[in-house]
Amino acid sequence: MSEAGARPTLEAVAARAGVSRATVSRVVNGEAGVREVLAVKVRRAVDELGYVPNRAARSLVTRRYDAVAVVIAEPETRVFADPFFALQLRGISKELTAHDVQLVLLLTEGRADHARVGRYLSGGHVDGALVFSLHLDDPLPVIINGAGVPTVFGGRPGWAGGEDSVRYVDCDNRGGARSAVRHLAGLGRTRIAHITGALDQTSAADRLDGFRDVLPGADARLVAEGDFTPAGGERAMRRLLDRCPDVDAVFAANDLSAAGALRVLRASGRRVPDDVAVVGFDDMLPVAEQADPPLTTVRQDIEEMGRLMAAMLLRGQDRSPAPDHAASVVLPTELVRRDSA
Amino acid sequence: MSEAGARPTLEAVAARAGVSRATVSRVVNGEAGVREVLAVKVRRAVDELGYVPNRAARSLVTRRYDAVAVVIAEPETRVFADPFFALQLRGISKELTAHDVQLVLLLTEGRADHARVGRYLSGGHVDGALVFSLHLDDPLPVIINGAGVPTVFGGRPGWAGGEDSVRYVDCDNRGGARSAVRHLAGLGRTRIAHITGALDQTSAADRLDGFRDVLPGADARLVAEGDFTPAGGERAMRRLLDRCPDVDAVFAANDLSAAGALRVLRASGRRVPDDVAVVGFDDMLPVAEQADPPLTTVRQDIEEMGRLMAAMLLRGQDRSPAPDHAASVVLPTELVRRDSA
Repeated sequence: MSEAGARPTLEAVAARAGVSRATVSRVVNGEAGVREVLAVKVRRAVDELGYVPNRAARSLVTRRYDAVAVVIAEPETRVFADPFFALQLRGISKELTAHDVQLVLLLTEGRADHARVGRYLSGGHVDGALVFSLHLDDPLPVIINGAGVPTVFGGRPGWAGGEDSVRYVDCDNRGGARSAVRHLAGLGRTRIAHITGALDQTSAADRLDGFRDVLPGADARLVAEGDFTPAGGERAMRRLLDRCPDVDAVFAANDLSAAGALRVLRASGRRVPDDVAVVGFDDMLPVAEQADPPLTTVRQDIEEMGRLMAAMLLRGQDRSPAPDHAASVVLPTELVRRDSA
Repeated sequence: MSEAGARPTLEAVAARAGVSRATVSRVVNGEAGVREVLAVKVRRAVDELGYVPNRAARSLVTRRYDAVAVVIAEPETRVFADPFFALQLRGISKELTAHDVQLVLLLTEGRADHARVGRYLSGGHVDGALVFSLHLDDPLPVIINGAGVPTVFGGRPGWAGGEDSVRYVDCDNRGGARSAVRHLAGLGRTRIAHITGALDQTSAADRLDGFRDVLPGADARLVAEGDFTPAGGERAMRRLLDRCPDVDAVFAANDLSAAGALRVLRASGRRVPDDVAVVGFDDMLPVAEQADPPLTTVRQDIEEMGRLMAAMLLRGQDRSPAPDHAASVVLPTELVRRDSA
């Protein structure tokens, strides 16, 4: 986290890039008339210093387009297959509509399309952007920073300095994971496994950290990598059963992968929760309720997270001189007990 | 259908509105500098004559924004709950991405937001629009016509003259419905019911027409109105069982409402297909395959319809001097037999 006063200034970027303050301003604000060679220097200095234009911290009080872009850093097939995104969009849509602001969802086929998304964002079509499902090696944050539109991220940013330089909304992934694993340990389970999410996402990394907080000496074979999908949960559960046939509990990083794990456990003849107790994450309805057996899970309010992201962008939040977590919001989670654990 | 040469011209609109040709051109192209009182006259004349600006018939060869809007005339909750839209968007997304054009999905909470969609479309943010799931009393076609961007519709337009003045992609709803009902009649069923879709949509109206083509004298109590949702299918099936306990077959207007009907039939103790045979429409996977029993249904290629809409918009299609159906595409359907009938 930056120290007070350490936030990079426009002047610092200008000095680093060896250009004038006005040139930095023009590049950062997406204005024309800057030679590409200079623009490249400015963008490099912006990235190196982690400079955040003031615009990104400003409110949208002076809206020009009455439109806000939503960018989900997943292929559109994933966006429509995972109800997480529908829930988050529902919260966003309600909040934007209440302010008569158009929700503009920018769909992509994959990461190769993110440069085009950046062009659209910087092209004067939207007043701001809401961005979620970022992956660690995704160029999107840099692209969005370069686009110079106010942005709120969904999920804790994973890149160095990200938490101090952007606004975001997240839930307490690490604390939620701890409560899930403590619950399983409290049931007397001694071979507790974890099916992770996509580990290039901070939500998955934080849930894995929560698992390790409670079980610091856990057998490494009890952690199997998943990807937040039902198919990923199935594959991980098969690996776990191969490696550790004595597994007696599973904490899956989300309800969808827990549902996949339940199918594999059933097919292997294990009874849930008698032989293997299972806990998910999300409390995604109807996935969690309609699972067989219904899932014990860690509830996060996904729709509310979407609503908060939109509200934060629209309302704007004054940034303190030394930006800190105060600009972002981390929502609590809650263990919901059903039959699976 | 218009007669050759009867297509309204810019001049005709100018004469009707009592303004100059240049004024009509400015209004139609969304340019500034026209007094509102004149603009209103022009828009009224455009609507009355069913005038289609040339831009709407032009290709997008000269793209300005490298972006195409998709407007689904349903609340966003419906968009994410019905896999039909995901499939159509998949086709659209693939085609647009292949041309490095950004897909801009404009989500709404409801019809009250359509005026805002019109403002976005006419605001210089997209090169064209793909519009689907229109309802008969929806102001969207007028709004979109006023926005003056090239447009392709998904589904046969239902308003007077619509088929002759806009480009659209649809499947053979009426022929598909006929094949479903003929199949049920061919099984010896004599009390064949129909659960309609939302009858303010042409797809539902056309499927009902197909049902009546085969069974012109059908008992009116054998037609129950649904709305393309599983819950609507359940409600309609309950009404049918109340009114006609001797029903021995059901043609549901889509797979989702057929799935709802199957649940009610099972709860009522009817065996499918022994007591009541059921046919759906769409061949929506996994809905149709995972239904219990798996659904016999009328297959339409939903993804391909989306792809064709995008291709038609990007490629442009020269309109013949007397516009006719040649500019639009109606895809064939195919009966897919599974266990439910």
